[in-house]
Amino acid sequence: MLQNNLDNKSRPLLLTIFGGTGDLSKRKLLPALYHLAADNKLPDELHMLFIGRKPMDNEGYRQYGIEAVHEYSRTDVDEEKLLAFSQKLFYHQMEFISEPESYIGLEKLLSGIQEGFDKPSIRIFFLAVGPEYFSTVVQSLHDKGLADKGNLDHRVMVEKPFGSDLDSARELNKTISEALDEKQVYRIDHYLGKEMIRNIMAIRFANSLFEPLWNHNYVDNIQITSVETLGVEGRGPYYEHSGILKDMLQNHLLQMLALITMEPPVDLMPESVRDEKVKALRSLRSFSDANSCGGIVQGQYGQGVKNDTKMPAYREEEGVDENSATPTFVALKAQVDNFRWGGVPIYIRSGKRLERSRTQIVIEFKRLPGINYYKEFESQPPNLLVIEVQPAEGMYFRINLKRPGNDFNIGSVALNYAQHSQFSGNVPEAYEQLLLEAYRANSSLFTRWDELEYSWRFIEGIQKNCQATPEQFPNYEAGSRGPEASDLMIKQDGRKWWEIDLDCEGPDCIMV
Amino acid sequence: MLQNNLDNKSRPLLLTIFGGTGDLSKRKLLPALYHLAADNKLPDELHMLFIGRKPMDNEGYRQYGIEAVHEYSRTDVDEEKLLAFSQKLFYHQMEFISEPESYIGLEKLLSGIQEGFDKPSIRIFFLAVGPEYFSTVVQSLHDKGLADKGNLDHRVMVEKPFGSDLDSARELNKTISEALDEKQVYRIDHYLGKEMIRNIMAIRFANSLFEPLWNHNYVDNIQITSVETLGVEGRGPYYEHSGILKDMLQNHLLQMLALITMEPPVDLMPESVRDEKVKALRSLRSFSDANSCGGIVQGQYGQGVKNDTKMPAYREEEGVDENSATPTFVALKAQVDNFRWGGVPIYIRSGKRLERSRTQIVIEFKRLPGINYYKEFESQPPNLLVIEVQPAEGMYFRINLKRPGNDFNIGSVALNYAQHSQFSGNVPEAYEQLLLEAYRANSSLFTRWDELEYSWRFIEGIQKNCQATPEQFPNYEAGSRGPEASDLMIKQDGRKWWEIDLDCEGPDCIMV
Repeated sequence: MLQNNLDNKSRPLLLTIFGGTGDLSKRKLLPALYHLAADNKLPDELHMLFIGRKPMDNEGYRQYGIEAVHEYSRTDVDEEKLLAFSQKLFYHQMEFISEPESYIGLEKLLSGIQEGFDKPSIRIFFLAVGPEYFSTVVQSLHDKGLADKGNLDHRVMVEKPFGSDLDSARELNKTISEALDEKQVYRIDHYLGKEMIRNIMAIRFANSLFEPLWNHNYVDNIQITSVETLGVEGRGPYYEHSGILKDMLQNHLLQMLALITMEPPVDLMPESVRDEKVKALRSLRSFSDANSCGGIVQGQYGQGVKNDTKMPAYREEEGVDENSATPTFVALKAQVDNFRWGGVPIYIRSGKRLERSRTQIVIEFKRLPGINYYKEFESQPPNLLVIEVQPAEGMYFRINLKRPGNDFNIGSVALNYAQHSQFSGNVPEAYEQLLLEAYRANSSLFTRWDELEYSWRFIEGIQKNCQATPEQFPNYEAGSRGPEASDLMIKQDGRKWWEIDLDCEGPDCIMV
Repeated sequence: MLQNNLDNKSRPLLLTIFGGTGDLSKRKLLPALYHLAADNKLPDELHMLFIGRKPMDNEGYRQYGIEAVHEYSRTDVDEEKLLAFSQKLFYHQMEFISEPESYIGLEKLLSGIQEGFDKPSIRIFFLAVGPEYFSTVVQSLHDKGLADKGNLDHRVMVEKPFGSDLDSARELNKTISEALDEKQVYRIDHYLGKEMIRNIMAIRFANSLFEPLWNHNYVDNIQITSVETLGVEGRGPYYEHSGILKDMLQNHLLQMLALITMEPPVDLMPESVRDEKVKALRSLRSFSDANSCGGIVQGQYGQGVKNDTKMPAYREEEGVDENSATPTFVALKAQVDNFRWGGVPIYIRSGKRLERSRTQIVIEFKRLPGINYYKEFESQPPNLLVIEVQPAEGMYFRINLKRPGNDFNIGSVALNYAQHSQFSGNVPEAYEQLLLEAYRANSSLFTRWDELEYSWRFIEGIQKNCQATPEQFPNYEAGSRGPEASDLMIKQDGRKWWEIDLDCEGPDCIMV
């Protein structure tokens, strides 16, 4: 996580992106690369080769890149820098799935580029293609000598999903591991590139205040929420195959859980951090039989109305089965069964087409001990530490104080810290951080195979024992809070989901 | 502290103030009483009798009161309410020191007023007179039957200073205790009426977060600072007699220390809280011999310049001896020798004519454990919890976070809470709280005799063993940070005085 020092800026970068005309390149990768170049984070010797099946020349792609940056940049664009950046964009047309022999030409092309460099380059292949093509591309890269097994300067960045269940993930990993060493594989979970998720390590370990409290003695429960108002947005066929469990839980949500609950690593090097994350994931109690399914609620949205506009049900989306059993919502109670967290429920919640969009981690501290003689204090709400990942990026502390005035009344106040208010416009997007850290060989922002394996095991337990059926769905209205059962589940434990508004300021934010 | 419920609003209030034409009445008591009345905190059956030696009638005093409220009210004045308020002001001319027989007339006056009430009144005598008159007034009140010993409805409020050393305080207490029960005596320390000092109890005991950290395992040191830019402002003769030790340390600063370090009381009733404060004061390590004086720095200001204006030295102030050995500054390292605080220094600092005015409590948490492999985190500044009493009223948390950006750099940020920004204009002055709580018989805002006794013992140790001499002074410039020795003392411990600006907001407040 802390690899500023590994910065090998002097090494040339030869970045090859499969899927150069796809959505990810346009919306995320081109703007991210532009920002990195504009901020002088990339080496001068830089060659960005975008590969696609469509016919286009370098000039055409440079125009495409300039337009993409204009459309999706997070800040105003510096035209001069953008022009300079665009000169390092190249395009290569290639049938990289159907014609394995085309990799021979690509190999020659890359070798030629390398000859123009002073030093051996860092060679990164970014697979911005469908997951069904990962094996084929990686195998070809290996077979045709573009990426040498064991050469840590040859790296492959793989988008999610990595497999669609435990078995297929294992199979995919087997293929890849025949072609590449584990350390050459950078499996993307773009949440790990988000500012406040990178911040979890700093919050926990760069402050002496939090670690003493970070255990079952002081924490009542943890809530990890990642909800959105969007539906499947035309990606029905993908979503039918994935559902919320594979789209969110298996990766982003369990990664957040691991970072929040892991033990302090031996040091801050990537493998040490990942070792601890794996241990947390291994300690996750599985949904091992049907009796355990009381701890999980799945949902699928039906129709709804927002601002007088009718929103379709999931089953009415394009490419979705009219009797689909695919969940678009999940709420569950996880347990990390170790000495630190025994007995502390970790409530996880995620869903599409809900009333709000927000990714937030809430640490709810235990209430005051039940002291009869402190009655006025006893009834106070618990202390909360909130880490907001999006839309705001910040941190929030809820404590109780005497309200100003002659009477001794207690009220809750928020101690706020919002990144955007202190550093406006300066927060990089996740893909900037991911591309840069892959260049720097900082693998802590990427998931190691064993992390994935234990995540898939957890999902497999749910799929085997608590699989949703078509009859259960739809069970929540588009634009609502999600299934009622989600609120009931946490209510049965005497708790509630926190809905914290980080941007709240002023007297109205006194919540009591 | 939490005596909202004891509110006996239905009992009439007969408030007699000795020193009705003095500074305290004009600047503090009249405005405070107006606010309490305007906020409907006082009973309808209310009679405020101001006593002075100057000739004046009720109408004259009402005019005097109206002018005082206009001049010193903390908010805009509601003229209608002020007029109604003024109708309850009365004046009685009386030689209350030289003519003990005059109390007979006063007794008749009060009895007459009582006859106009439906119920027995709460009878409060407020001694806004020089400390040399306390004994005389209290004795006369007793002798002439105005205040009955043992009748808890008869209360006397006494301003500081209560004695001028341990012996004189004991003597004064002896006289008073012959006339009144301890529970009838409300010894004012107006800091206890300040919003954020009342808040210390709430911060510590209405949150589950702080108490686990509130001990020598997690706290590195505590700093209690109360400094001001003002000099003695024409009160030279008073100050010559008092000095910083009796003006600030013996009362305000030790009271803050007691509230911060005391054990959680059995309940929140006044006597339980005061029991714990006494225990903290008893645990204070005394300056028991000359060898211990390395832990205390005393100072007296010399001349200085501020905004091109020359400021006089203390010895040049009116009524001050030209070889005065009276300290106007003190910095010391206190130790509360108990299981909670053993080994945690409590640095106390107070002075006149310094570069800034501020009363602030800083809890500095221990640095991270010395873990070699967390180097990037190790160098970070410690976490701080700051309670600001004045000029701002608020709370401030300093923690370390990853700075936004592609690199993993740590920076300090402030989580702020300022009363005035959330509740502007709504913060009552200390005397409002004190008058109201005396009416409510909430003695937790007043100091009990044994608290005072142990405070004086601590001061006596300093006076006996570390008395300042004229040759030491002056040793700091007016308008400076105080004597260099104060900074050296804390530096020798490997620490520094924190100078925290609570109102600081925005990127400049990142202090690293």
